[in-house]
Amino acid sequence: MIESFAQLSEIQGSHLVWTLLCICLLIFMQLGFSCYEVGLVREKNNIHVVMKNCMGFCISMLLFTFFGIVIMFGPLGSMGAYLHSIWFENEPGELVFIMFHSILCATTVTLISGAVVERMRVRGYLTIAILTSVFIYPVFGRLAWGDKLFSDNPYAWLGALNFYDFAGATVVHSVGGWVALAASLVVGPRLGRFGTDRQPIRPSSLPMSSIGVFLLWIGWLGFNGGSQLFLTSTTPLILFNTFLSGLAGVISAMLLSYRRYQQTRVIHVMNGGLCGLVATTGGADIFMPWHALVAGAIAGVFPSTFQSWFKKLEIDDGIGVIPVHLVSGIWGTLLVGMVIPLEGDASRINAICIQCLGIFTAGVFAFGAAYSLLSLINRYRPLRVPKSGEVIGLNVWAHGSSTAMLDLINQMSAQAELG
Amino acid sequence: MIESFAQLSEIQGSHLVWTLLCICLLIFMQLGFSCYEVGLVREKNNIHVVMKNCMGFCISMLLFTFFGIVIMFGPLGSMGAYLHSIWFENEPGELVFIMFHSILCATTVTLISGAVVERMRVRGYLTIAILTSVFIYPVFGRLAWGDKLFSDNPYAWLGALNFYDFAGATVVHSVGGWVALAASLVVGPRLGRFGTDRQPIRPSSLPMSSIGVFLLWIGWLGFNGGSQLFLTSTTPLILFNTFLSGLAGVISAMLLSYRRYQQTRVIHVMNGGLCGLVATTGGADIFMPWHALVAGAIAGVFPSTFQSWFKKLEIDDGIGVIPVHLVSGIWGTLLVGMVIPLEGDASRINAICIQCLGIFTAGVFAFGAAYSLLSLINRYRPLRVPKSGEVIGLNVWAHGSSTAMLDLINQMSAQAELG
Amino acid sequence: MIESFAQLSEIQGSHLVWTLLCICLLIFMQLGFSCYEVGLVREKNNIHVVMKNCMGFCISMLLFTFFGIVIMFGPLGSMGAYLHSIWFENEPGELVFIMFHSILCATTVTLISGAVVERMRVRGYLTIAILTSVFIYPVFGRLAWGDKLFSDNPYAWLGALNFYDFAGATVVHSVGGWVALAASLVVGPRLGRFGTDRQPIRPSSLPMSSIGVFLLWIGWLGFNGGSQLFLTSTTPLILFNTFLSGLAGVISAMLLSYRRYQQTRVIHVMNGGLCGLVATTGGADIFMPWHALVAGAIAGVFPSTFQSWFKKLEIDDGIGVIPVHLVSGIWGTLLVGMVIPLEGDASRINAICIQCLGIFTAGVFAFGAAYSLLSLINRYRPLRVPKSGEVIGLNVWAHGSSTAMLDLINQMSAQAELG
Repeated sequence: MIESFAQLSEIQGSHLVWTLLCICLLIFMQLGFSCYEVGLVREKNNIHVVMKNCMGFCISMLLFTFFGIVIMFGPLGSMGAYLHSIWFENEPGELVFIMFHSILCATTVTLISGAVVERMRVRGYLTIAILTSVFIYPVFGRLAWGDKLFSDNPYAWLGALNFYDFAGATVVHSVGGWVALAASLVVGPRLGRFGTDRQPIRPSSLPMSSIGVFLLWIGWLGFNGGSQLFLTSTTPLILFNTFLSGLAGVISAMLLSYRRYQQTRVIHVMNGGLCGLVATTGGADIFMPWHALVAGAIAGVFPSTFQSWFKKLEIDDGIGVIPVHLVSGIWGTLLVGMVIPLEGDASRINAICIQCLGIFTAGVFAFGAAYSLLSLINRYRPLRVPKSGEVIGLNVWAHGSSTAMLDLINQMSAQAELG
Repeated sequence: MIESFAQLSEIQGSHLVWTLLCICLLIFMQLGFSCYEVGLVREKNNIHVVMKNCMGFCISMLLFTFFGIVIMFGPLGSMGAYLHSIWFENEPGELVFIMFHSILCATTVTLISGAVVERMRVRGYLTIAILTSVFIYPVFGRLAWGDKLFSDNPYAWLGALNFYDFAGATVVHSVGGWVALAASLVVGPRLGRFGTDRQPIRPSSLPMSSIGVFLLWIGWLGFNGGSQLFLTSTTPLILFNTFLSGLAGVISAMLLSYRRYQQTRVIHVMNGGLCGLVATTGGADIFMPWHALVAGAIAGVFPSTFQSWFKKLEIDDGIGVIPVHLVSGIWGTLLVGMVIPLEGDASRINAICIQCLGIFTAGVFAFGAAYSLLSLINRYRPLRVPKSGEVIGLNVWAHGSSTAMLDLINQMSAQAELG
Repeated sequence: MIESFAQLSEIQGSHLVWTLLCICLLIFMQLGFSCYEVGLVREKNNIHVVMKNCMGFCISMLLFTFFGIVIMFGPLGSMGAYLHSIWFENEPGELVFIMFHSILCATTVTLISGAVVERMRVRGYLTIAILTSVFIYPVFGRLAWGDKLFSDNPYAWLGALNFYDFAGATVVHSVGGWVALAASLVVGPRLGRFGTDRQPIRPSSLPMSSIGVFLLWIGWLGFNGGSQLFLTSTTPLILFNTFLSGLAGVISAMLLSYRRYQQTRVIHVMNGGLCGLVATTGGADIFMPWHALVAGAIAGVFPSTFQSWFKKLEIDDGIGVIPVHLVSGIWGTLLVGMVIPLEGDASRINAICIQCLGIFTAGVFAFGAAYSLLSLINRYRPLRVPKSGEVIGLNVWAHGSSTAMLDLINQMSAQAELG
């Protein structure tokens, strides 16, 4: 394994600065997710969502650095050599590779969190973080990307079939989305979300969420731009495609929302932009700019469409993770099959089928593994907070913290009742 | 046009990384404007301002990429070749140039938004975004900067006369400021801003605005630092000047505020810093550090001075866009004439006159075009929300969203009335 | 002095871009401190903390640029040559050096602010900023780092003894921490913090603080990563160590908090992460990754430990600056002595003693100078706001600003009393 990083150690100057910049931008993605979720949950859970993102990020990055990365990229069995290399060699290219990919793994974990907000225990979320970082993400990642370091890496099955997923439309976003769906089904919907005692769940601060979208957008430039781990002549195209698909998502969601409601609904427009960004992740380096525009414009309609569908199915997707990451991830991966330049006498149908195979495998494996493992764990150690904890809010229940605003609201209600 | 980008395609390594970094920083400017405006408007409009900035950014960037850039830099008539190049060639230098300049255009649009907050329809604002991106900004931009790509570009009249505007003190800030002034006059002041039924308009969150100022400052490093589209030995000087003028603006506004009110008034100090940053935009690469200090220190007094003047004239400039972008932009452009190194036997008077000509042309063209077009549009499709929409707030009226805080305030008022 | 920068002027391309990127990241640290403090103070002081950080940053950067840097790095007596060089030469390497170190100085000033929040006058805080920027920071900085430019620089006493402080565990964090302790003792605790009329001091927005921690983390990548002022093959290791120590701090604080309270207390976890980040600052380039993990894991227990200790001593450390910056800074500096590779026949004991000497000198000089000067100033011009100002809050008292939220709280209380 140690030798395998040798090629990376030759990265120099500009390559190194660019990749380090992308690593910094990836951290803004964590910030973006936190702002986005803080704004969309109720006041009584807003501290909790940042805390769990922060702790999940740390645990995921640590575990992936020491275990996940070997499972995902390593010649299995070289754990000892690998750990020795991490501890004692400090090879620059290797460290850059590890940092980038461990933050990518942490991104997958963080995006899951949005689907189970306001009702899952911290312990439950950290369990998901651990399962994802050492098992679900690296195992599927190996199937798809395992040959990124060693072209003859065993078990890099999808990669060997020419399954193409540039920066992780499937590996990061769909896999995360499937785990999110499984976790959401296992813990069940929030109290009062569906049924007869249904009450509106009001976001605490949409401006904060919108700011989160901008931060995610900034982070996405590093997410896509850094995925080559080199600065290449394709890098500007990757960023340009990222911009185009994001703005196409915003504009198409905006037009759809205006047409339907004569209003530009905030959550649809914001999620539309994120759907656009996800949609281009799978092929940002091979898309022509107009592909990115089309990818984004179509993805922009997912949030409003799927939101009502999920409502009917009584799946409580928290802040709308599934349309953004799962559906757009599938769409982006599929589009890659439709437009990827074919080599030799490869057929278009074949390319599309391979992409479908990857999409399907991700679904079966990630959803299956997450659903069965979480159900099992849930039986012995419940993932969900007790009812009283959910009512009082996770700020107080899990972290012993309240907000001035929340106290005020409670005071108000008390006053109103006393009347 | 395609050939014209050939020189840019040679950008390599460090140049590319630096310019891409500056593009990322420019996006922080969008974030900064949003935070700044969110904090300064009332609770009932805070979601609206982020939403409109986000949608305006997307529309502006899209339109400038496909139309504005040809109007601004292209040999007119080569639209076909240009579009072909965008769609199919993916030339790195070209894409970097397009991204940087389209975000610059979107910055111009976003800065306008601050002047018309809390009363303009989303449709009205997007109309301004469209007019600015495909007409006002690129047409004036061509006069001043049209020879940046082709030295013999027709109609680059001011550029040919050696009008100097490094990163856009006039092209971006003054032009944006003039459009903002025109738009503000066309839509009129907010209800209760002036006259006998005057009520204080209270910012919802000044800490958020102050954070926005820091973000704008960070963005400005990319705005000025990237305007050469290359990394040069002048780059550190440009950043140093940007820092010095910003801090001189803060310090001079702080001293003035303390002298006048024995308090350091938040809005004066924040706007003072922004005035300082604008003032150095026109000549960040040719200023000596002490020019930047003087530019910023003088600009720092504009906010408090012009605020009271505008109050007297009953011009409702929303969050104080005119002193920051228009007045400081003019001051910065003028200062360039006073200190720019003269070539050959050019005279100082001449240099100053050319700068004045540019300032004057920007005023006549940008204000004239914006005022007449917006007045015309306003007659047929009102730009302003109906009175009820303004009273209830644009969060609810335009986006169907409310905030927990706003509801609480309303509840409070209701309680207070019931007594 | 001018010649001394010659070596730096050879920095090219990647070195320059990397260092400029780190300078941008350092500004995010300012943003992070502001968000962090805004969230932890009470609503009535939240505007004040951002304002004072902003003004302190500007004054500190200006003063360090013109005076501090000569005191810290220059051959004393060359002030004239140095100022000439700043004003007229615009040497790129010199400007980069000045920008990086002046922002480092401003960081030291900003970290002090957290200890004296909610009770110190703006004038008092700016006095600390001035004293620190032109005296305390550069004088100790000269002892430790004065030979960074000239190896034979007089008075670079600790540096000559091989005292090692990579990015400022002592020079920045401990020195700042000592000044913070001194200032906290001189102004005394907040009203109602201790004693019989003790009332809980409730943070206004913990989500904002958590976001601040992420921003600080991002800034730390520039803080540590840029401290070589070059891009080297050690740069990735530096960032990797920074990540590892931060996450180890979060995880150890989380486990400790959960063990003690069955809850992951927000402030402990956040401060634990910051402690981890500080702990690795002194040796990010010489630590093996496991040193960084250990450094962070141990530092993560400081916040909860020292908080209760300080409560007993009735020292009001505002938002918890001392454990984070002072204690972790000392711990990190000490650890450097324990693990730094020894050259020739140097002994381990000797290396540890030298580190202790540096830690001790910083304590005696920074605390002594700050305590005596601030006590003296306090006698003639009180640093603390009058009682009425503290009760009404510094937003109103010092800046004439209120927040909608605060007014609401006051309205509520009034109602409750009437009620």
